[in-house]
Amino acid sequence: MSEEGKYLYQVGAVELVGHLARGTVDLKEYAQGMMGFTQATDPQVKAFAHFSPEIIGMQLERLQRHRQMDAAPLPLLGVPIAVKDNIDTEDYPTELGFVGTQGRTPRVDAYLVHRLRAAGAVIWAKSNTTELAYFNPTVTENPRLPGHTPGGSSSGSAAAVAAGLVPVAIGTQTNGSVIRPASFCGVFGFKPTRGLIFNGGVLKCSESLDQIGVFARNIEDLAAVAEVMIGGHEDSTGRLVFPMRIRELAAQEPPLPPKLMFARTPMWDRVEQQAQAAFEDLLAELQDCMSEVELPASVSNAIPMLKTVMEAEMSANLKPLIDAHGGQCSQAMSDLIARGAQTKAVDYLHARERMPLATQGFEEYFDHFDAIVAPATLGPAPKGLDTTGDPIMNTIWTYAGLPCVSLPLLQTEDGKPIGVQLIGKANEDGRLLRTARWLMQRLSSAT
Amino acid sequence: MSEEGKYLYQVGAVELVGHLARGTVDLKEYAQGMMGFTQATDPQVKAFAHFSPEIIGMQLERLQRHRQMDAAPLPLLGVPIAVKDNIDTEDYPTELGFVGTQGRTPRVDAYLVHRLRAAGAVIWAKSNTTELAYFNPTVTENPRLPGHTPGGSSSGSAAAVAAGLVPVAIGTQTNGSVIRPASFCGVFGFKPTRGLIFNGGVLKCSESLDQIGVFARNIEDLAAVAEVMIGGHEDSTGRLVFPMRIRELAAQEPPLPPKLMFARTPMWDRVEQQAQAAFEDLLAELQDCMSEVELPASVSNAIPMLKTVMEAEMSANLKPLIDAHGGQCSQAMSDLIARGAQTKAVDYLHARERMPLATQGFEEYFDHFDAIVAPATLGPAPKGLDTTGDPIMNTIWTYAGLPCVSLPLLQTEDGKPIGVQLIGKANEDGRLLRTARWLMQRLSSAT
Repeated sequence: MSEEGKYLYQVGAVELVGHLARGTVDLKEYAQGMMGFTQATDPQVKAFAHFSPEIIGMQLERLQRHRQMDAAPLPLLGVPIAVKDNIDTEDYPTELGFVGTQGRTPRVDAYLVHRLRAAGAVIWAKSNTTELAYFNPTVTENPRLPGHTPGGSSSGSAAAVAAGLVPVAIGTQTNGSVIRPASFCGVFGFKPTRGLIFNGGVLKCSESLDQIGVFARNIEDLAAVAEVMIGGHEDSTGRLVFPMRIRELAAQEPPLPPKLMFARTPMWDRVEQQAQAAFEDLLAELQDCMSEVELPASVSNAIPMLKTVMEAEMSANLKPLIDAHGGQCSQAMSDLIARGAQTKAVDYLHARERMPLATQGFEEYFDHFDAIVAPATLGPAPKGLDTTGDPIMNTIWTYAGLPCVSLPLLQTEDGKPIGVQLIGKANEDGRLLRTARWLMQRLSSAT
Repeated sequence: MSEEGKYLYQVGAVELVGHLARGTVDLKEYAQGMMGFTQATDPQVKAFAHFSPEIIGMQLERLQRHRQMDAAPLPLLGVPIAVKDNIDTEDYPTELGFVGTQGRTPRVDAYLVHRLRAAGAVIWAKSNTTELAYFNPTVTENPRLPGHTPGGSSSGSAAAVAAGLVPVAIGTQTNGSVIRPASFCGVFGFKPTRGLIFNGGVLKCSESLDQIGVFARNIEDLAAVAEVMIGGHEDSTGRLVFPMRIRELAAQEPPLPPKLMFARTPMWDRVEQQAQAAFEDLLAELQDCMSEVELPASVSNAIPMLKTVMEAEMSANLKPLIDAHGGQCSQAMSDLIARGAQTKAVDYLHARERMPLATQGFEEYFDHFDAIVAPATLGPAPKGLDTTGDPIMNTIWTYAGLPCVSLPLLQTEDGKPIGVQLIGKANEDGRLLRTARWLMQRLSSAT
């Protein structure tokens, strides 16, 4: 237990860094405790594809040497981070959730892993991904709802945070693979603006759509970890400086009272009754600061457009990979590849060309409002582990490349988590998180 | 006639700027003379789609005001430049060589036109382009070979320089539309490294392949004009500074004796007998500095790959344009659009993905050699105006995005020009032009 009466597995990332700096927590003891917790808990949750106390121990030794050198403080010193198993790591294997690439051991870290390590993070484990980050489910349970899916494709990352195995985990999203599992597992999920995090060393599914995301237990941690992955530079004293100031902005009070837009979206009729009811309550509670809006015409075809781009690119990228590794894959994957192989180049080019227009279509919305509010999923996690749920409530924002966060604010009457999705202006990720933090405070002080 | 016994239409661009600076030529008199020459000559050549002494007069007035302000010298002050009619200009119409867009008047200059004007150039005329810069020929004659094609798609630009109407003209190349007409018309043609010249305001045919090029009567002018289009910035005295130093490098003596590679290419058997003979003579003459090489494996499929990328992108880009303007186009164009519409997205993506690999495949060649030498065309200009000739000798280099120059060094026994193509390392355009200038000198001193 930490100083403030929390169990170790309840301590957030930024909070932990503070404890370590003040000496109120000892890194070695903390890590020992967390390893024990993982060994006791993960056999039920099955969040991790690879977990090794030995690999963690080697990382801790390197960090110990850094601290003895009395170097500049590291923003994520000692923070355990689980990384989705479609992101290359040079110590742990990276098996991509695919039978053909079992035992795959990349020679170098993905760029974002390199950045996390340089900031002092401990790559704690590799978390289960669906087959090649598409739909075929993993064995992972939803820690909040045993017997229900944690969502996908970042199944293990969401579940690991929900179970307390790590304070932070990294996922990827091509359609809705960060925001959806965050909603289903009742954790915070954040997908920054498309292109901000360099994806070198991450499995290429759909180069136009693939985006990196973070799971955590609070907004401060989302900001701190996203900032490190986006990257900064060292100033003359060796301290890391981050030009987008996401963490700094996220911690500030809004200069003016935030204004929110509520977007039912064209899929509202498909949102489950109990989720609809929860959102109607939220709308009533926030009526002083939230207005309903229609989406811009620039995204009226976003759903078929994303499908066109995604299927063509995934087919082009994954078929050679699958063929080179035995050709065995799920029916869902071979159907996807067959559909993508039929896509015409002209349709693909038109769909891809409209992506920046989709982004631009939202620009003026954010002159008047701070964020869009929309359901993160059609409802709570579906029962059973044979599906990962429907990403349809994420498609429009993913296609437009806007930053999105899922906040664990709502639940059904029987206690199943439902995420509230906040969508921000492209490249104003700090402002989105600031608005999200303000919303969390407003709703907690109201209760 | 100028001071040095040349007719006005023989004076090069850089030479002209020097004359104007020294006062040995008067800009107004020069322009009057050149306008008279155009009016007397172009009715035969038919290089220009749009030519207006009034529009030229307005540009000269603006230049006059600049000179009276005693501002920093402009690198292209007073140089008449013809611009292909698929490049937007805000004074002249830009009709794209297409029946559906007759009378089209863009509101703003293409970015490269803006740069040329800022450097003091006079946009002299718009030169004829084939229909939407594809294969359907223009009315333009080859000034060196009446009754023969000047090549395409930059037909008017090559012919205008060959006829002496302008010292410099701008063209575009998606497959071989700069180097081929330069070869056929016996002028210098230069297509810098792909991506160096921003193509905002230029008709988008194939975004992955479209490149800008220059025609001139000497290498110095190619370098000076390409440098301006690539762009620089003003130093503290208001003088333009060009970081790639193309003009400076092109003017230097090579630090070591240049070494050349002769590439017959897989199309050698299709090169016409008289062109083959001329190249064999060249090979014999340069045997001390030129070796034969095979092309790298990275371009073994460049010809079908370029076709896949070009057809898909041209179909996606040009069909909406044609449909929006009455739907009438040549059979060649509708065939192209139909082929492109059938291209599969996965084939397109694979072909496009290999483009940077094609570029990289040549890198080590240029550790040992300064330039590749290859035929610029299969032979001299074909007879008749119903074809623009075959771009096959340009396809590999265009696909790889390497800088290319065509030098009017060879001719058939009956005096028809044949260009020698020099290909350089990506982003080492100045070195390529330096090598080209050295080769010109070496061959002229040998005769």
